[in-house]
Amino acid sequence: MTQPTETNLQIRLAARPKGLPKDSDFQFTEEPIPQPGEGQVLVRNLFLSLDPAMRGWMNEGRSYVPPIGIGEVMRGLTVGEVVESRHPDLKPGDVVSSVLGWQRYAVARAKDLNRIPPGIAPTVALGPLGMTGLTAYFGLLDVGQLKAGETVLVSGAAGAVGSIVGQIAKVHDCRAVGIAGTDDKCRWLTEELGFDAAINYRTAKDLHEEIRGACPKGVDVYFDNVGGEILDTALRNLAFHARVVICGAISQYNATEPPKGPANYLALLVQRARMEGFVVLDYTARFPEAQGQLARWLAEGKLHYREDVVEGLENAPKALLRFFDGSNRGKLMVRV
Amino acid sequence: MTQPTETNLQIRLAARPKGLPKDSDFQFTEEPIPQPGEGQVLVRNLFLSLDPAMRGWMNEGRSYVPPIGIGEVMRGLTVGEVVESRHPDLKPGDVVSSVLGWQRYAVARAKDLNRIPPGIAPTVALGPLGMTGLTAYFGLLDVGQLKAGETVLVSGAAGAVGSIVGQIAKVHDCRAVGIAGTDDKCRWLTEELGFDAAINYRTAKDLHEEIRGACPKGVDVYFDNVGGEILDTALRNLAFHARVVICGAISQYNATEPPKGPANYLALLVQRARMEGFVVLDYTARFPEAQGQLARWLAEGKLHYREDVVEGLENAPKALLRFFDGSNRGKLMVRV
Repeated sequence: MTQPTETNLQIRLAARPKGLPKDSDFQFTEEPIPQPGEGQVLVRNLFLSLDPAMRGWMNEGRSYVPPIGIGEVMRGLTVGEVVESRHPDLKPGDVVSSVLGWQRYAVARAKDLNRIPPGIAPTVALGPLGMTGLTAYFGLLDVGQLKAGETVLVSGAAGAVGSIVGQIAKVHDCRAVGIAGTDDKCRWLTEELGFDAAINYRTAKDLHEEIRGACPKGVDVYFDNVGGEILDTALRNLAFHARVVICGAISQYNATEPPKGPANYLALLVQRARMEGFVVLDYTARFPEAQGQLARWLAEGKLHYREDVVEGLENAPKALLRFFDGSNRGKLMVRV
Repeated sequence: MTQPTETNLQIRLAARPKGLPKDSDFQFTEEPIPQPGEGQVLVRNLFLSLDPAMRGWMNEGRSYVPPIGIGEVMRGLTVGEVVESRHPDLKPGDVVSSVLGWQRYAVARAKDLNRIPPGIAPTVALGPLGMTGLTAYFGLLDVGQLKAGETVLVSGAAGAVGSIVGQIAKVHDCRAVGIAGTDDKCRWLTEELGFDAAINYRTAKDLHEEIRGACPKGVDVYFDNVGGEILDTALRNLAFHARVVICGAISQYNATEPPKGPANYLALLVQRARMEGFVVLDYTARFPEAQGQLARWLAEGKLHYREDVVEGLENAPKALLRFFDGSNRGKLMVRV
């Protein structure tokens, strides 16, 4: 049994950020490595997933999960290795995914850990086969009720979720159109992932016209990761009986004032359309089904993904900011 | 056969209103009474329905129906009496509903007219058994997917549609809460129609708190006729898996600037809720089913309604304004 000699580095929420998180909103602490009790397991985190939603968890107020408390270890999805086990189902060396947060080590009950089968890379378990892929899968197919031949528009298209959304659309013989923030990202979408078109919203002269040109029959499913003006413009381009899937609103997470709200929401009436929010955690019972399907598409070469790995847990706070200046490239995570 | 001796008074759209419609936006014309051709029928309009949506039809731009053209007779639902028939299915004296517009007489094909059975008052065919009742019925039950025991919040609750929505909710053993603009209207809702609570949004100190107090378990179905701040505040009070039914947005119809949009739309994500627009005309095939049900509830004394009849077609333009100052009381119509 490896007996770790280091201490447990942890990153805690020190203050609720106003706007973009800054250094003083985080607190670094060191503690002795915890000891597992009966039925528990000690895990050494290998990778920490960074997700835009984390910014929301740092805010006060009601959301789909409770806010992170001041002084608490930052919440986060992790993949780690079992170091010591006092439960018969797990043994040292097993790789497990869970929500162990921004720290090097954690003790957890075996039932809160999902063992990752050998042969699946830890980072893939955070990406296309993890919450990222699952969010795309259930959002597009279940909430979005995608049908073959439809047009899918996705914002944040070069992000971890958005890029999978477009590729799942292509698997279903749909037209996939992405919105992203650099020409480079747009090229990646069309040249490597098979999107039919990609729009750079930062350089678009008239986003509405560009969406209209790329979606000549209108948008049947709009998968929204960003909110704000892009959501509002997408609403102007809905097809009859369209579905708007609200997955996130990255443009709003650092807002210090209430968001403007989608002024064109009456398009829902004109087009008899629907706008619906979802949280992937509601689909836990169906994760195996989805992971099986996602794994098949991966094996068949139908899903491509890009990883953006930041070295060192201590760099997590700075890395989180990359969602908000658009500099992340693919699934963002930290090698702990 | 009665041979009319008058001419045909018509009210046409003279200009697209900016903000509230004014006299000069309408044009009065007189024409000879038209003659029915083979298979056609001459109808003398008895009642013209006034509806908030008419204001939207006067605007340019894409909506669920084409805008009324400049110079065209104003569009409107009507109930009238057959004066002369050149079709075997209809005879003089038959009462028919249709969309014959703001005029005394019109010629129409028999297939565009719905005969109203004797025993149903013409005004009821424009109200609880007409588009008004049908809009409430399909919006609440089909789009809103109401289930027994849920809480229904409706805005414009003292309006023709809203008042039926709350009563249908009560028939389904639901809690019905209405939002209206005067204490008098609120009293009517709770004392005569059986609403569980009514909120005067004009005098509410804190609309959010008042909604929360009246809907302690949250709002399962919010039926929105008004848009604007009230929609936004309702969103803050949604229950898990709530449905927001977008029927209209009377607060926005005269807006000269783009509406603000519901800033709290991310409640849809937090509560896994849905916002959906609809147009009652999509349900034509199911009108008989709904009218049968509505007629039963009327006969059983479960649906009450109030009529607000304005005398004289020439007063229609002024009467339309009553939607926007809140002075209408019940189903607004014009005795032609």
